[in-house]
Amino acid sequence: MNAEIIAIGSELLLGQITNTNAQFLSKELAGIGINVYYHTVVGDNSDRLREVIHNAKQRSNLIIFTGGLGPTKDDLTKETIAAAVGRSLIIDNDALLNIEAYFKRRNRVMSKNNCKQALVIEGSHVLANEQGMAPGMAFNEDGIYFLLLPGPPKEMKPMFMTYGLPFLFSKLDKTAQITSRVLNFYGIGESQLETELLDLIEAQSNPTIAPLAKDGEVTIRLTVKHESRSEGLNLLDQLEKRILERVGMFFYGYDDTTLSKEVARILNEQKLTLAAAESITGGLFSSELTINPGTSAIFKGGIICYSNEAKQALLHVPKEIIEEFGAVSGECAKYLAENVKELLNAQVGISFTGVAGPTQIEDKEIGTVYIAISKAGEETCIYPLKLAGTREQIQARSVKYGLYYLLKQFS
Amino acid sequence: MNAEIIAIGSELLLGQITNTNAQFLSKELAGIGINVYYHTVVGDNSDRLREVIHNAKQRSNLIIFTGGLGPTKDDLTKETIAAAVGRSLIIDNDALLNIEAYFKRRNRVMSKNNCKQALVIEGSHVLANEQGMAPGMAFNEDGIYFLLLPGPPKEMKPMFMTYGLPFLFSKLDKTAQITSRVLNFYGIGESQLETELLDLIEAQSNPTIAPLAKDGEVTIRLTVKHESRSEGLNLLDQLEKRILERVGMFFYGYDDTTLSKEVARILNEQKLTLAAAESITGGLFSSELTINPGTSAIFKGGIICYSNEAKQALLHVPKEIIEEFGAVSGECAKYLAENVKELLNAQVGISFTGVAGPTQIEDKEIGTVYIAISKAGEETCIYPLKLAGTREQIQARSVKYGLYYLLKQFS
Repeated sequence: MNAEIIAIGSELLLGQITNTNAQFLSKELAGIGINVYYHTVVGDNSDRLREVIHNAKQRSNLIIFTGGLGPTKDDLTKETIAAAVGRSLIIDNDALLNIEAYFKRRNRVMSKNNCKQALVIEGSHVLANEQGMAPGMAFNEDGIYFLLLPGPPKEMKPMFMTYGLPFLFSKLDKTAQITSRVLNFYGIGESQLETELLDLIEAQSNPTIAPLAKDGEVTIRLTVKHESRSEGLNLLDQLEKRILERVGMFFYGYDDTTLSKEVARILNEQKLTLAAAESITGGLFSSELTINPGTSAIFKGGIICYSNEAKQALLHVPKEIIEEFGAVSGECAKYLAENVKELLNAQVGISFTGVAGPTQIEDKEIGTVYIAISKAGEETCIYPLKLAGTREQIQARSVKYGLYYLLKQFS
Repeated sequence: MNAEIIAIGSELLLGQITNTNAQFLSKELAGIGINVYYHTVVGDNSDRLREVIHNAKQRSNLIIFTGGLGPTKDDLTKETIAAAVGRSLIIDNDALLNIEAYFKRRNRVMSKNNCKQALVIEGSHVLANEQGMAPGMAFNEDGIYFLLLPGPPKEMKPMFMTYGLPFLFSKLDKTAQITSRVLNFYGIGESQLETELLDLIEAQSNPTIAPLAKDGEVTIRLTVKHESRSEGLNLLDQLEKRILERVGMFFYGYDDTTLSKEVARILNEQKLTLAAAESITGGLFSSELTINPGTSAIFKGGIICYSNEAKQALLHVPKEIIEEFGAVSGECAKYLAENVKELLNAQVGISFTGVAGPTQIEDKEIGTVYIAISKAGEETCIYPLKLAGTREQIQARSVKYGLYYLLKQFS
């Protein structure tokens, strides 16, 4: 089944909101093996919507519409679709009762234009809206499935999951299914990763291999079509093994995980506590870690030593070290990591010092960064980096490298 | 000029990322009076991209493409467009030098497939990529403008703002011009703001008033059409005055400013230095502040006192205070703000303590937050808050409230 998702709403074309519905639906459809080939956004205009429906009918056998089912004058999705397939609109009694109940619950008077929301396309399977008023619809015309869903994500998502997905699943050929697995990498660029895996990518058919660069990280999505799940997982395992033999040193986790989640998991497993001294990253490392719930078990806290005064007074970096090597130095990073660990009574200390720009510090180039990791009873490791990018990118990449080094050192 | 935005990338159709580029571009195009009638997303497939280009040429006279300009095999945007308009691809020397420099800066070896990124469509105006490698392109064929931009928003946005927008503006009818001004508000919801300004919004024609909610803030974009710039500015001034008479207490700045930029500006003006003690926000406040260059003049640093141990040992909150009132209390916030100020030798101290969830602390409800601001020689102010949302939203909103209170207290 080849699908197209059509969102209707001028607010999307004015850039007032993002089309998150298309992302949500695409992910769910991929999960049941339906290929989405197009997303389209069109405004509240029946001529242009008619043309978009015409194009979609030529190329897709599942067309999902979101938006334009509301009570106002510019909501014209179902009218335009009904005309395009030559059906009429009729009042759906259950939908009308639901709308009346909706107003009653809120003690509000129901204005007459709300009745319009109970109109549905004749002969369609009506999908109840448990979070709002406008019902959804599903029907088949000339071998093409049409699915109409409301625009607000709070109404669309539960309606699709409760009624839309089971409807589609019942129409699919059940013998072929799809399973995906995402591998996450850090410390390697997209083009280098592709070069390392070129023969595998070129030979791919089933499973398929799709690399994607995102926020300085690279992911690879492996997708397999199979008849039995165990056969699919087996094929994914084999391919994953071949990939990790080559680039396993950059791999850090599966699917929706993040570097900071993996660090929290590893430290938890090893029963280690962490403290951070942040100069160049200004608190970003600690905030990345504390986004995850339950961090208090492994994170003692940190010191943002943005000024040299703070490095000396709070973190006891000797004045001579700063005078001889500078605050942006491996030597300073070492003191910061060791002393923040002691001060916060943690087992591991990590520190970040460097130049994020836009101006140089101590004649050191923008992008010069030192990360140090100290653990009780072990030699402190110092990692020098040269990073490129804007101030914000250099800060963000420093944090990711810090997380990556923690993972490499403790997992 | 009627525009269409075409995003190319299978990762969009798989639902791995959202098409935020289309939103960004739509908003900017609306700002200069260009109507966007369609958004389309298509995968990395030259047959389907060719068909999408064919449709776009029938109905639009500006087609903007994002994505598919990278080095890998599935990047085929410029090849397919070049074929569709009958032009060839040639190496652009500046782009090639930029790519080589990009690898040199990172001390990485340039793999051969990266040369492909320096290929541009013959006769096009090449747009430099200052944040990455793939250059953009702009050209006119048969009265239709084509604009090719990279997919990653971090590369696309600055390229469009620096080179794309001026290119389009130079092609527009110059007699009618457009000027916009954005007013930024915090501490008031979108619907309340709209209610306060309802008569102005309903009566609008020129200038227009467009409210927009974003990340817990609300902005109002005023847009005026005019023949002379002074006439336009005059109309904007008049409307702004009427708006600020009603909701001026929530206004914090113009256009692209942020709460943290305004705080840095005010503290600089007043020659005040700041230190932060962060419990619930875990470093996010400090990182928001240090994203801005030049923060070192006003920000001494901070302490992330994530554990009660750190609150007592580092920030000297008396044990009795935590036992009697809890770590999540106005009393604890007061000690944290006062003591972090002393410890870091700053004139102003700010502190954040609270419950971000997902579990309660000390029987206090999720969303309970205390912010304290201490200034030498003045009574410490304590701000209690009840915030709604996910863990991440509660953390982010706490930071914004902290910045907002600093602004209100010192400007």
